[in-house]
Amino acid sequence: MTETETYRGRARIAGEGEGVGLDELALATRNHGLPLEALRWDLTPPGLHYVLTHFDIPAVDPDTWALEVTGAVERPLRLTLADLQARSSASARVLLECAGNGRARFTPRPVSQPWLLEAVGTAQWGGTPLAPLLTEAGMSPEAVDVVFTGADHGVERGVEQDYARGLPVAEALRPETMLAWSMNGEPLPPQHGAPVRLVVPGWYGMAHVKWLTRIEVLTEPFTGYQNAVAYRVATEAGDPGEPVTRIRPRALMSPPGWPDFMTRERFVPAGPVTLTGRAWSGRAPVTRVEVSTDGGAAWADAELTPDDRAHPFAWRAWSHSWTAEPGTAELLVRATDATGETQPVDQQWNRQGMANTLVQRVPVTVLPPR
Amino acid sequence: MTETETYRGRARIAGEGEGVGLDELALATRNHGLPLEALRWDLTPPGLHYVLTHFDIPAVDPDTWALEVTGAVERPLRLTLADLQARSSASARVLLECAGNGRARFTPRPVSQPWLLEAVGTAQWGGTPLAPLLTEAGMSPEAVDVVFTGADHGVERGVEQDYARGLPVAEALRPETMLAWSMNGEPLPPQHGAPVRLVVPGWYGMAHVKWLTRIEVLTEPFTGYQNAVAYRVATEAGDPGEPVTRIRPRALMSPPGWPDFMTRERFVPAGPVTLTGRAWSGRAPVTRVEVSTDGGAAWADAELTPDDRAHPFAWRAWSHSWTAEPGTAELLVRATDATGETQPVDQQWNRQGMANTLVQRVPVTVLPPR
Repeated sequence: MTETETYRGRARIAGEGEGVGLDELALATRNHGLPLEALRWDLTPPGLHYVLTHFDIPAVDPDTWALEVTGAVERPLRLTLADLQARSSASARVLLECAGNGRARFTPRPVSQPWLLEAVGTAQWGGTPLAPLLTEAGMSPEAVDVVFTGADHGVERGVEQDYARGLPVAEALRPETMLAWSMNGEPLPPQHGAPVRLVVPGWYGMAHVKWLTRIEVLTEPFTGYQNAVAYRVATEAGDPGEPVTRIRPRALMSPPGWPDFMTRERFVPAGPVTLTGRAWSGRAPVTRVEVSTDGGAAWADAELTPDDRAHPFAWRAWSHSWTAEPGTAELLVRATDATGETQPVDQQWNRQGMANTLVQRVPVTVLPPR
Repeated sequence: MTETETYRGRARIAGEGEGVGLDELALATRNHGLPLEALRWDLTPPGLHYVLTHFDIPAVDPDTWALEVTGAVERPLRLTLADLQARSSASARVLLECAGNGRARFTPRPVSQPWLLEAVGTAQWGGTPLAPLLTEAGMSPEAVDVVFTGADHGVERGVEQDYARGLPVAEALRPETMLAWSMNGEPLPPQHGAPVRLVVPGWYGMAHVKWLTRIEVLTEPFTGYQNAVAYRVATEAGDPGEPVTRIRPRALMSPPGWPDFMTRERFVPAGPVTLTGRAWSGRAPVTRVEVSTDGGAAWADAELTPDDRAHPFAWRAWSHSWTAEPGTAELLVRATDATGETQPVDQQWNRQGMANTLVQRVPVTVLPPR
């Protein structure tokens, strides 16, 4: 693959000192992140939950909508929303994070949706488990991937496509994997995939296909654009790289005090400050959250809320007491999960800014006590 | 006022060719616009309605919240949410637009919240009219401005403040001006000002103060930062400029066809295409919408939906039939209101990118018929 071909298929790398372009800005103003003070809610309200739509939000009429189940199955199905809602119900509190979260802080910067740190949210999703439906369709024992196709259509890096992702059959059959039509007890909002989306707890957002129209069982790996080209972790231009799968451990902090409108710098009066935030991993339980209040020189364990077994795929709250002294401080936070993986303090760069977990840094000006 | 003082008080102007900075990007990822395909809905769902918060979204407990009515009144009031909800009810369909909409397309670019075109939305707001409350409090006949203060706190261009805006008393007494606690029939979402915000139909968004805590009647003009410095239309650095007030006429188009992920360029198969969108003005009814499909050389009248007298402060739908020929095209749309004002095809620059209505341009690649 030549460099030119790579550019056609993947993100361009910004030049040294190149500011964000109007193309990246157009993505940033359409899509939106979680303002970090919204980490305060266990369940993220819809308008504060991150959203990434590759193309346009499609207009789907729930009354005429139907879902096809096809491919390597004995009994292809066609299901209306009422058909789905008559099936057994499922509900799960699930954290979603965009695989590109943090991309815009990479140096050099991959040119794509320019997330800083806020492409995250946790919601209660309601629907029906996927596995019984695949069983009912008589999925082939030779099945390898299950492909989920959405109604969203467009061109990405030269390839015209309906958004589609293949999921390994073992993940499709997990009891937690569901077809969801509600979010926090309400029908899905348009931007979150109405009428029905896929939810694959633990995976980065690209797997949770929205505006579902078709489920196709394949007996060989899916080679569509979003699996083979887009969501890969690769450092070299010609390297196919590794697929993006489950969410790596991360902690985020609600920035304390109050902000400057333009710089988002924080101001905190001196004295005791309770730092709070959330931590998660889609691979294993979070086992440790550490906070530094001196730019990363020293780290202390934060207090974690008790592990909530009822919500293994949600985030966990953490808190840490800090005595702020007048002057400036830089606050950092990092998570470790039960696999032993800890967030890096220095960037682990890759070409598309995928699955990076570089720690958050919060510069704070501490004011005299008030 | 020296240039330096002006920079302290107002937006910096980006240098020639200077890309969007991480400070502007941090605002773009926190705040969000209306993806333009969402113009299809008469009422914008909350997560698609534009949001601008100058500081953080404050945590306000509706159970302990109370609103003070104070200043030049005979009987200061303190009202709980239940007190307000026991009063006469009001409901209005109102378009909101940020005064900075379109700022990031200015050349040179004022450095602030970098809106392209999407800082807009229409919702059904429910609450109680403001005027009877001011009457009940015994507002002074000398009243000039009514100041609305929110719970959101921060620093803007060096000035620490609770967000506060003064509104001329005649506007505060209009029958349509209300204290709102519902949006599209649901309690206000946190980012839209829960539990109670001000709604001043026809005015740009900065007037609709969110997270209200205090209403203060003044017998002289309010000179707070957001009135005296921030929301002004001025071209020269030292010029105090004119205050931003009501929304100027604008039309927007739902871009036809499908997008390229990164460039947002549009692709449309050749043949008949119905172009659609919305038009509005906060000053007078929209009387005309014109469309150009050749980059602005020729203009044709679009069809406007019948003027909806029930919703004078909402947007109006428009449509226009276009026969797309293979090749490239640039689509433009512009609105005129009953004051005779029409959107300009060339920019009318001002230092802070306020109240600009430069026309939208939609480049389209028309594909061979399919």
